[in-house]
Amino acid sequence: MQHIYPQMPYLKQTIENIETVLIDPQGHIKARFDTLAIPRGSLGRLEELATIYYSIKGSLSCGIRHKKIFTLAGDHGVIAEGVSAFPQQVTREMVQNFIREGAAINVLARQTGAKVIVVDCGVASNIPPSPGLKIKKWKHGTNNMALGPAMSREDAVKSIEMGIELIEEELQDGLDIIGLGDMGIANTTPSSAIFSVLGNVDVSVATGRGTGLNDQAVQKKIAVIEKAIAINRPDPNDPIDVLAKVGGYEIGGIVGLCLGAARHRIPIVLDGFISTAGAIIASALEPKAGNYFIASHVSGEQGHKHMLKFLGKEPLLNLNMRLGEGTGAALGINLIEAGVKLLNEMATFQDASVSDPYS
Amino acid sequence: MQHIYPQMPYLKQTIENIETVLIDPQGHIKARFDTLAIPRGSLGRLEELATIYYSIKGSLSCGIRHKKIFTLAGDHGVIAEGVSAFPQQVTREMVQNFIREGAAINVLARQTGAKVIVVDCGVASNIPPSPGLKIKKWKHGTNNMALGPAMSREDAVKSIEMGIELIEEELQDGLDIIGLGDMGIANTTPSSAIFSVLGNVDVSVATGRGTGLNDQAVQKKIAVIEKAIAINRPDPNDPIDVLAKVGGYEIGGIVGLCLGAARHRIPIVLDGFISTAGAIIASALEPKAGNYFIASHVSGEQGHKHMLKFLGKEPLLNLNMRLGEGTGAALGINLIEAGVKLLNEMATFQDASVSDPYS
Repeated sequence: MQHIYPQMPYLKQTIENIETVLIDPQGHIKARFDTLAIPRGSLGRLEELATIYYSIKGSLSCGIRHKKIFTLAGDHGVIAEGVSAFPQQVTREMVQNFIREGAAINVLARQTGAKVIVVDCGVASNIPPSPGLKIKKWKHGTNNMALGPAMSREDAVKSIEMGIELIEEELQDGLDIIGLGDMGIANTTPSSAIFSVLGNVDVSVATGRGTGLNDQAVQKKIAVIEKAIAINRPDPNDPIDVLAKVGGYEIGGIVGLCLGAARHRIPIVLDGFISTAGAIIASALEPKAGNYFIASHVSGEQGHKHMLKFLGKEPLLNLNMRLGEGTGAALGINLIEAGVKLLNEMATFQDASVSDPYS
Repeated sequence: MQHIYPQMPYLKQTIENIETVLIDPQGHIKARFDTLAIPRGSLGRLEELATIYYSIKGSLSCGIRHKKIFTLAGDHGVIAEGVSAFPQQVTREMVQNFIREGAAINVLARQTGAKVIVVDCGVASNIPPSPGLKIKKWKHGTNNMALGPAMSREDAVKSIEMGIELIEEELQDGLDIIGLGDMGIANTTPSSAIFSVLGNVDVSVATGRGTGLNDQAVQKKIAVIEKAIAINRPDPNDPIDVLAKVGGYEIGGIVGLCLGAARHRIPIVLDGFISTAGAIIASALEPKAGNYFIASHVSGEQGHKHMLKFLGKEPLLNLNMRLGEGTGAALGINLIEAGVKLLNEMATFQDASVSDPYS
């Protein structure tokens, strides 16, 4: 991997500090579950979630206090090819909606007690500064990948480092679990391209309707992605090359969130199609990062189920959602917290004076 | 149906007042969703949940304020046949655990902001009165259904009326949605018998491991259920006969909850195997009651997936849980509330000044 980051000490150092997660290596989590006044195993995947959460944390000591969902926004030059049912300005308009807390992710984050971190990673137009917005951009969206690379290799690395930096900043006032989220009109197009290249799947398998394309428009979108891959020839063995040539700024930021969170042993809750494309790049850069992923849901977007299978992750929910923003992650965080609360708050057979058939 | 309740005016009146639910008959709910600043349909089943919720309520006016999960407890004479891995006193011990708020259902209900209504419907031993317990029993558990009827027809009707009464009582300080729940050592055995008879499925298909039987013990359980059906000959066209001969007091209570809630247009969130057995009896008594059911999860208990298919309900979650108590219902209520909150709290394209591609 050295060839990937010759002059990128920050990224290199982050990746090198990602540890393998051992699942309950000393059996403490299972031992604690076995004391609880329930038939063994009867909480199913909620037990698995608590086990993964605490295995990542490395100790049974803490509950989940600081939940943050990162909703990263960026624009895409490939919109010029007519690959989206929505106009580009909707990216900016939706960022402003996030700031005013009127979007779906705001509603679901409130319900689950998570904070939404809204980040401009490369929106095409300027958004006025606001306390509810982190402005991290240095480019106004990517170039049209159907005509050439979406960004330079340097910008791709910088976008990942921006994501790592977001984690470092948010660590300061507490970060127990993160949800990934995105906003970017046309960003299913680069996500499909990334998965097609890194997952070695046909573009038609990796490409879906996005915000609501009809059959004809999907065919056109497939042709655009095929053209982008043919022109740019992203190297499947070089994830940063893939991000640069057919990716996006918010997707690079998501890669950085994954690496930065993994480096600090923070569980990472995947959202939908775009966030999972970022997660795939992160795990291609460092497979151990995948140990920190929890798949919240499988999206209605064609291709997402294949992405999750590629990552070896079983989603918690299948509700035919396809919105992004971090909405699936918010619901997933709630289920993970359910598992953690059960482990921490339930009475044992002994506490509750319930006859223990296993003793 | 008249033959079922000749001298049961309360039950008869309740059933006769259950109305058919029309899904969004005037299109108001869809019209509201169409104004929200998201790609149409992108919230998937969360939109469906809000639509069902408000279609049941009959108006778009209210949010979900009063959420109550009814955890009904009863004992079963059939325990004498060795059908459970847990001893009978665990029913009482767990009721006391519910009262002290140390059980899984207490943890999950707290998380979702629901109140747990704990009811002794027929626990074998006496439980001291407590502010956290409703004592409604008049019998100390059912008779052994492998030797004769579990209860008299009169007691079966009385158990249903007890469930209706619980709804009437809880309506007084507000009831927007209910979750079904149960506690009763050995109660997968009557539930399997009920489904086998009313669902016309083989006992082996309807019978699973309960709290954790091994293969040999499951075979024995199947034989016990087959014997109970052979001896009692419950009439599949007479749901009260089925409840009386191979049911239980808490299951009868659940039937009453379903009928009482449906009569007041309150959405009913099914839990696992036992609560769904009760729901099947309720919908056999009055198919319109099924309009009010929302399936929270499919349990790990063999047979539950067949029950849900029989009712025509698609579960929201599949987490391999098999605990009962209302735990699946608690998680389901949270998802329903997510849908309702999205509809009520999200900004419209107009409010948020987001370009509306549908206008």
